[in-house]
Amino acid sequence: MAELTHLDDEGRARMVDVGAKAVTDRRAVARATVRMAPTTAAAVRDGNAPKGDVIAVARIAGIQAAKRTSELIPLCHGLPLSFVDVVAEVDVEAGIVTLTTDARTSAQTGVEMEALTAASVAALTVYDMVKGIEKGVEIAEVVLLEKSGGRSGTWRRGG
Amino acid sequence: MAELTHLDDEGRARMVDVGAKAVTDRRAVARATVRMAPTTAAAVRDGNAPKGDVIAVARIAGIQAAKRTSELIPLCHGLPLSFVDVVAEVDVEAGIVTLTTDARTSAQTGVEMEALTAASVAALTVYDMVKGIEKGVEIAEVVLLEKSGGRSGTWRRGG
Amino acid sequence: MAELTHLDDEGRARMVDVGAKAVTDRRAVARATVRMAPTTAAAVRDGNAPKGDVIAVARIAGIQAAKRTSELIPLCHGLPLSFVDVVAEVDVEAGIVTLTTDARTSAQTGVEMEALTAASVAALTVYDMVKGIEKGVEIAEVVLLEKSGGRSGTWRRGG
Amino acid sequence: MAELTHLDDEGRARMVDVGAKAVTDRRAVARATVRMAPTTAAAVRDGNAPKGDVIAVARIAGIQAAKRTSELIPLCHGLPLSFVDVVAEVDVEAGIVTLTTDARTSAQTGVEMEALTAASVAALTVYDMVKGIEKGVEIAEVVLLEKSGGRSGTWRRGG
Amino acid sequence: MAELTHLDDEGRARMVDVGAKAVTDRRAVARATVRMAPTTAAAVRDGNAPKGDVIAVARIAGIQAAKRTSELIPLCHGLPLSFVDVVAEVDVEAGIVTLTTDARTSAQTGVEMEALTAASVAALTVYDMVKGIEKGVEIAEVVLLEKSGGRSGTWRRGG
Amino acid sequence: MAELTHLDDEGRARMVDVGAKAVTDRRAVARATVRMAPTTAAAVRDGNAPKGDVIAVARIAGIQAAKRTSELIPLCHGLPLSFVDVVAEVDVEAGIVTLTTDARTSAQTGVEMEALTAASVAALTVYDMVKGIEKGVEIAEVVLLEKSGGRSGTWRRGG
Repeated sequence: MAELTHLDDEGRARMVDVGAKAVTDRRAVARATVRMAPTTAAAVRDGNAPKGDVIAVARIAGIQAAKRTSELIPLCHGLPLSFVDVVAEVDVEAGIVTLTTDARTSAQTGVEMEALTAASVAALTVYDMVKGIEKGVEIAEVVLLEKSGGRSGTWRRGG
Repeated sequence: MAELTHLDDEGRARMVDVGAKAVTDRRAVARATVRMAPTTAAAVRDGNAPKGDVIAVARIAGIQAAKRTSELIPLCHGLPLSFVDVVAEVDVEAGIVTLTTDARTSAQTGVEMEALTAASVAALTVYDMVKGIEKGVEIAEVVLLEKSGGRSGTWRRGG
Repeated sequence: MAELTHLDDEGRARMVDVGAKAVTDRRAVARATVRMAPTTAAAVRDGNAPKGDVIAVARIAGIQAAKRTSELIPLCHGLPLSFVDVVAEVDVEAGIVTLTTDARTSAQTGVEMEALTAASVAALTVYDMVKGIEKGVEIAEVVLLEKSGGRSGTWRRGG
Repeated sequence: MAELTHLDDEGRARMVDVGAKAVTDRRAVARATVRMAPTTAAAVRDGNAPKGDVIAVARIAGIQAAKRTSELIPLCHGLPLSFVDVVAEVDVEAGIVTLTTDARTSAQTGVEMEALTAASVAALTVYDMVKGIEKGVEIAEVVLLEKSGGRSGTWRRGG
Repeated sequence: MAELTHLDDEGRARMVDVGAKAVTDRRAVARATVRMAPTTAAAVRDGNAPKGDVIAVARIAGIQAAKRTSELIPLCHGLPLSFVDVVAEVDVEAGIVTLTTDARTSAQTGVEMEALTAASVAALTVYDMVKGIEKGVEIAEVVLLEKSGGRSGTWRRGG
Repeated sequence: MAELTHLDDEGRARMVDVGAKAVTDRRAVARATVRMAPTTAAAVRDGNAPKGDVIAVARIAGIQAAKRTSELIPLCHGLPLSFVDVVAEVDVEAGIVTLTTDARTSAQTGVEMEALTAASVAALTVYDMVKGIEKGVEIAEVVLLEKSGGRSGTWRRGG
């Protein structure tokens, strides 16, 4: 059976030792979606009008969280990110806010967790800002879309 | 139209002033689900066998993240939590790991974001530990289940 | 001669013990100004146009820094803020961006350092965003404008 | 017109991608000045006498803040500093405490924000320690004095 | 057999729920000792001469660490400290630096971990500063000396 | 007399400038011991039984603390760790829990403080979890066992 790389022979959690891995350019793209009523999505979009900061706050929160990933995820390695971005799209009719994140580095380990952490925290921030007008909003998905660099090459989400 | 409480009259993001709110006992329960192949879920369950730390790491990560919610979510107020817990369940056949979180305080504002942040970070930590054996694992949902305390009383997720 | 409250009898730095102070509503207002060329100030203002995030980033940075004041200023007490805000104004002709901050709590000690920290970090964030187009931009002032609550009552900056 | 490097084509704030930049030795020197009454400045100087810690606290606060710059300034890259220092000078007659900071690294991006953040937080820490004996003390200036390394070479503040 | 309060019925780690505990004044005093060669202890003492910052750095590090205890110790509750202090003594002949810490709050839970964390980090900081002149320096002890407040009353270390 | 590398010519604390040091593989191993009654040690061991998390929590706390060493120890350089581990052993009869840590990096400076910080925080976490059943538990020792890499080569603790 497949063995969890984060467990040693006795099942104890551990960091993976990346000291022998090559430094290569790494990139990961992730996405989170937040599902709400169309009227709430409209308020988010309007909050994105002149001087409106809704999406900006979510984007900044995601970027800052990416930089702190190794503080949040216990077995993650710290690494210096060369780039992080969070793009937000609002589909008012469908009642969906989508947060797509992009993280890059040149390091011995990948940035998959950084991209996913940015997406999660950006989504939580959108939730925080709409919870006053709608209860029960849902973070409907947090997924990796693409990952490249390192020994395992490029992976893209199917379908 | 409903107005976002986190925007001022000109649409600028802001913290809500909770200075005039009553201090009451607050509680929130949230849930995140992580979807993976049954064989991966079996490894998580086995990682939970004697000396296995998989679930323990996720639980600790969630508890610690709850305490740092106001650092992650820009417009959240800091508050002293009296209790946080993260319970994990593994459904091997369905390939689902469920993280249910419970946050409590006595404060002027609620702990909804704390419970959701704990669930999100616990789910990300599960993802981090299984990503070496399965690509494309999905955080399928992060939702509030229940919320009580404060002026708006108790809310429970329907269905 | 006046004695520094943060030094004990032997001159050693210390936290002031606030345990015997009354819990009262506290508020502080501070201001930072950033001086730059009018063309740079115009770019900041335009960066504040639809979808432009310059001012939003500075405001969020200030709000988040206020919440972490006690981590940055060694002898500051941690306290739960009930409100923090950062308002930015751009005077293009004068080449001045002004960041005015407002911090509030109900606690045994004041929020002067929180308001000043928010102003400083918001100003540094403006600097960070314009440094690519103008070298030598200057944070020209960080001052307290007003402070109320606690034994010493209300203070307002003169002239 | 000059364009802000921290905004994308649609005006959204972003981190600059430094992945393609060369790793070079980088250095930045910054200065903050704190203006107070001569008697207050004398207390700071005396607080610097045997066993007095005033200046030491400010220096340590500045060094520690430099290391956390990327947590405070949203679009800053994290980088490992090889050196940070904060030198304090007290001019009693003029009522001025000057904090001069020096930050160094070998990285793909500069350390200007690290030097300025160290200066700002050291100045705020001086303020915190004198606010009990004088109201209205002013951080009168936070500026970059010198910057070297990277494509744009060496810059020194005029006049 | 005595049961660990931090484990639930199934042995899972958890935070203790302090929501029903009374808010009382709490205090804890702890001590760490660092053992080194007398010549090294002399350098520490001399580093404590005019302008010397060795002890000051250790004291500040301890105070700051106390404020972050709940970030370091996973099941600790965050609480606002009303006072923290670190007193250092150097016994040159015995080659011992002693760090005694005092933490106070008014809260639903005690400050034992805060006092011990301050002592540990102050001791590590002394170690950091002497490691360049002596290898093998030892943190010889970190203990609680006294604890008061809360249901269990006052406890003092024997002998 | 030996001079403290963390003090400049005037005795002011400073970071050592590591900019000219070579990047080499670095490793450090440290150990902390916690002394308690045998019955308490038995509870820790049993807390390590199926689903029991005592040791897991201490290990995770140590790993996470290692990554934040430069935030805790003022003059430490931040560096990206390639590996950290904490191994715990319980000697019930002797009433001793031993935490052995291993930190590795490839950098311009060593990881001695990271290994010691991990050991200290893991020990404090064990203390936190047993303090409810035994007062007066003692962290009896925090020491470096081994250090390698860099100019000074390999050092091993005698005896």
